[in-house]
Amino acid sequence: MNTATIIGLSAAFLSSISMIPQVIKVYRTKKTKDLSLGAFSVLAVGLFLWFVYGIMIQAIPVIIGNVIGFSLVCYIIVIKIRNG
Amino acid sequence: MNTATIIGLSAAFLSSISMIPQVIKVYRTKKTKDLSLGAFSVLAVGLFLWFVYGIMIQAIPVIIGNVIGFSLVCYIIVIKIRNG
Repeated sequence: MNTATIIGLSAAFLSSISMIPQVIKVYRTKKTKDLSLGAFSVLAVGLFLWFVYGIMIQAIPVIIGNVIGFSLVCYIIVIKIRNG
Repeated sequence: MNTATIIGLSAAFLSSISMIPQVIKVYRTKKTKDLSLGAFSVLAVGLFLWFVYGIMIQAIPVIIGNVIGFSLVCYIIVIKIRNG
């Protein structure tokens, strides 16, 4: 594996898991007032399209990474809609 | 341009601009209490690595998209550190 691929995979990995601390924070506090519903909604659509793209080009890392990211963002959106 | 490329570019575009509503909200309210510093820090590192990856594989859309995303996330981090 060359350096570019390693950096690309690290980028994909970190981007995918990045919202884990936000999910933990939302889960613990149930406070989402300062979060932008618009931002997380656009992000969710973006991650879903990455997922579809991953299926179309049959790239397992793209599929898995974006399923994780999409699930995390959806959780945040659900609590945001519920709690405001 | 085939369908997969169009979906991939749409995914990249939406992911890149997704934090614009969050930046606007932070700029207006200066409230960042519910935002996770950890989440946005991991995201910033991820986007920076995407940017480096874009340079290495010489992919202009990857470079531009992630410069935009990284800048937006850095703004949120700065206000978060300043205001708590």
